[in-house]
Amino acid sequence: MQITILGGGGFLGRKLAQRLAREGQLGDQAITGLTLFDLNAPPPLDAPFPVRRLAGDIADPAAVQAAVPAGTGVVVHLAAVVSAQAEADFDLGLRVNLQGTLAVLQACRALATPPRVVFTSSVASFSGGQEARLEDDARQLPGNSYGAEKAMGELLLQDASRRGFVDAVNIRLPTVIIRPGRPNKAASSFVSAILREPLLGLETDLPVGEAFAVWICSPRRAVDWFLHAMTMDTKGLGLDRGINPPGRSATVGKMLSALEAVAGPEARARVRHAPDPAIEAIVGTWPASFTAERARRLLGFSEQESLEEIIEAFIADDLAATRAERGL
Amino acid sequence: MQITILGGGGFLGRKLAQRLAREGQLGDQAITGLTLFDLNAPPPLDAPFPVRRLAGDIADPAAVQAAVPAGTGVVVHLAAVVSAQAEADFDLGLRVNLQGTLAVLQACRALATPPRVVFTSSVASFSGGQEARLEDDARQLPGNSYGAEKAMGELLLQDASRRGFVDAVNIRLPTVIIRPGRPNKAASSFVSAILREPLLGLETDLPVGEAFAVWICSPRRAVDWFLHAMTMDTKGLGLDRGINPPGRSATVGKMLSALEAVAGPEARARVRHAPDPAIEAIVGTWPASFTAERARRLLGFSEQESLEEIIEAFIADDLAATRAERGL
Ligand SMILES: NC(=O)c1ccc[n+]([C@@H]2O[C@H](COP(=O)([O-])OP(=O)(O)OC[C@H]3O[C@@H](n4cnc5c(N)ncnc54)[C@H](O)[C@@H]3O)[C@@H](O)[C@H]2O)c1
Ligand SMILES: NC(=O)c1ccc[n+]([C@@H]2O[C@H](COP(=O)([O-])OP(=O)(O)OC[C@H]3O[C@@H](n4cnc5c(N)ncnc54)[C@H](O)[C@@H]3O)[C@@H](O)[C@H]2O)c1
Repeated sequence: MQITILGGGGFLGRKLAQRLAREGQLGDQAITGLTLFDLNAPPPLDAPFPVRRLAGDIADPAAVQAAVPAGTGVVVHLAAVVSAQAEADFDLGLRVNLQGTLAVLQACRALATPPRVVFTSSVASFSGGQEARLEDDARQLPGNSYGAEKAMGELLLQDASRRGFVDAVNIRLPTVIIRPGRPNKAASSFVSAILREPLLGLETDLPVGEAFAVWICSPRRAVDWFLHAMTMDTKGLGLDRGINPPGRSATVGKMLSALEAVAGPEARARVRHAPDPAIEAIVGTWPASFTAERARRLLGFSEQESLEEIIEAFIADDLAATRAERGL
Repeated sequence: MQITILGGGGFLGRKLAQRLAREGQLGDQAITGLTLFDLNAPPPLDAPFPVRRLAGDIADPAAVQAAVPAGTGVVVHLAAVVSAQAEADFDLGLRVNLQGTLAVLQACRALATPPRVVFTSSVASFSGGQEARLEDDARQLPGNSYGAEKAMGELLLQDASRRGFVDAVNIRLPTVIIRPGRPNKAASSFVSAILREPLLGLETDLPVGEAFAVWICSPRRAVDWFLHAMTMDTKGLGLDRGINPPGRSATVGKMLSALEAVAGPEARARVRHAPDPAIEAIVGTWPASFTAERARRLLGFSEQESLEEIIEAFIADDLAATRAERGL
C-alpha cells in the first residue's frame, strides 16, 4: 500500500505520518511507501517503509502528479491555506484551496486504479452560529471564503467519486485542539491558544466570551478518523461523500475549567478577556454543534475524549516539542 | 446602463437580448450598450442601443474581460455546456462551467463598481427524484457533473458577493420548455421535444413514463426572472444568493394532454414510448418539485403560466423560426 499525504508537513499531516510510521500498516495491508508533500519539504520521518519528502505547490499540477506516483492507493489531501488567510487574500485561497484540489483530482485520475482520497473539509463550510445543531443533511452556506472553497472541493471530489475517478471521503473537521507550536492564521487559532499558551506559562487573549461554544475534536481523534476514512467501505455512502464526524460541542468556559482542573488556577488566570469583533464575525457564523448521527451510528467514526483527556494528551504528545520549537 | 450577456447566442440569451432590445431600458434605466458573447458571435440584433457581438471562449480570461468592458452594470452569465455533454466530457464541463465562471468573476472584479451578476444554476444541482418537494434550504447533492459544476459556481459567486466583488443572484432554473430549434445534448432535451416535435409534424421518443414529473418553467418566465434578478434589491438575500424560482411541477402525461388540447390527438400520437434508462438515470435524480416560498413570497419572482399557455406561447414566438431553421 503506497500512501501520499499532501500538506504532510502541517499539524495533522505530521501526526498522521508519525502514526503510519508507528503502525507500519494501514488496516491489514503493509505500507510499502509514503510520500509527504508540502510547500517546504516535510521533516524526516523514522519509518519501517521508504519515505519521500517533496517540496512543491499544490496548485502546480506537475508537482502534485510527482507526489502521487503510479501505484498510490490512498491520497490524504490536507494542503490548504487556513480561514483567516483565505479571507485576507482571496486569490491565494482560490489558488490553493480550489485549484489545488483540482490538481489533486487530475493527479489521481492519472493512476491506473482510482485511489481512496481523504479530503479535509471544515465546520467553516457551514453557517448557523451559536444556536445551531446541524443535522447530517444540513446545507453548506459558508460565511467565509475558506469554507466556500472547502465546499467546492467537496462537490468536485464527490462528483469525481460518483464517476469512479477517485473514491473520496470528505471529512468536515471540527476545530482541532490543542494545536501545538505557535498561534496560526486560522480565525479559530484562539481555541487552541487559550489552552496551549497557559500550559507553556504564557498569557493569551480570548477574543470571545466564555459562553461561546465551539465544535471541536482532538488531534488524536482526527488521526483516528483519517485512518478510518482511508480504509472504510465507501459503498454505503452513496452520492453523499461528506462526513460530519462526531466532534464535541464545548463552551470556552468549559475548556477553561478543564484547563484549571488539569493545570491549576494559575494556568486559567493566564487567559485575558480581549473581545475581537473581527474574529468573532468569522467564527460566530460556524455552527456550534452537529448531530453527526451518520458518522457515529452508521459509519463507525469514533467519539471524542473528555476535555481533560484532550489537555492531558497535548501535555503527553506535544508540550515538550512546542517548548523546544519556541525556545521556551 | 451597460449590459453583458455571456452565452448570448444561446436559447435564453437570445430571448433576453430580444426583450432588452424591445424595451430599450432595464427597470427605469436606459440601456446604453449591450455586449453579446458566445463561442460563435451571436446573431445581429435590432436594438435602440449599440450592440457588440463577440466570439470567444468563456474559459479564456482575456476574452471574457473584453466582453465585460469598463462601466458594465449587469452581467448575465448563461454560458455553459449542458448536462449530457458535461457528463460525456468531464474535462470540458469543468473547463467551461467551473473555470469559465471563475473567469467571469475575475472580469467582474476588474470593474470599478461591482456589477450585478445573474448566474443560471439548475434544478440538476439537487437530487431527490420523483418523490421530492424541496424546501428553500434544501442542500445541493448533485447526481451529475453539470449540477456539481453549477453548485460550485454558485458557491463562488455567493462568496464573492459576500466580499463585495460582485452582487450575484444565482437562479436555479427549472427545465425550460419549449426549447426551439433542434433537440440538444441536455438530458432533459426530451421534455421540450415531446411538445415541439409534434407541433412541427414530427415523431419523437419519450424516454420516461407518462407519470414522470418534471420541474419546468417557460422561456417567457425565465426571461421575466432574469429581468427581475437584474434589477431587484439584493439586500434581503443575506448570505444566501441561491434562488429556487416558482416553476411548475408537471407530469409528462399532463404535458401531453395540454398538447392534445392545443394541437389535437394527432399531435399527441406523434410521441412514441421508447424507455431510455441512461436518460432516466440522469433526470430521475432531479427533484420533481420545490416549495419556492422565498422567491414567490419574499422576492417577487413571478409564477408560471398554464401548460396550454406555454404551448401557445411557443407557437406564437418560436414555431415559425424553428420550421425555417430546420428547413421544414
Ligand atoms: N486544524 C484544524 O482545526 C482544522 C479544522 C478544519 C479543517 N482543517 C483542515 O485540515 C487540513 C489539515 O489541517 P492542519 O491543521 O494540519 O493545517 P496546517 O496549516 O497545519 O497544514 C496545512 C499544510 O498545507 C500546506 N500548504 C499550504 N499551502 C500550500 C501550497 N500552496 N502547496 C502545498 N502545501 C501547502 C501548509 O504548508 C501546511 O503545512 C487542512 O486542509 C485544514 O484546512 C483543519
Ligand atoms: N434551458 C434550460 O432548460 C436550462 C435549465 C437549467 C439551467 N439552464 C442554464 O441556463 C443557461 C442558459 O441556458 P440555455 O438553454 O440558453 O443554454 P444554451 O446551450 O442554449 O446556451 C448556452 C450558450 O453557452 C455557449 N457556450 C458553451 N460553451 C461556451 C464556451 N466555452 N464559451 C462561450 N460560450 C459557450 C453556447 O454556445 C450556448 O450558446 C445555461 O447556463 C444553462 O446551463 C438552462
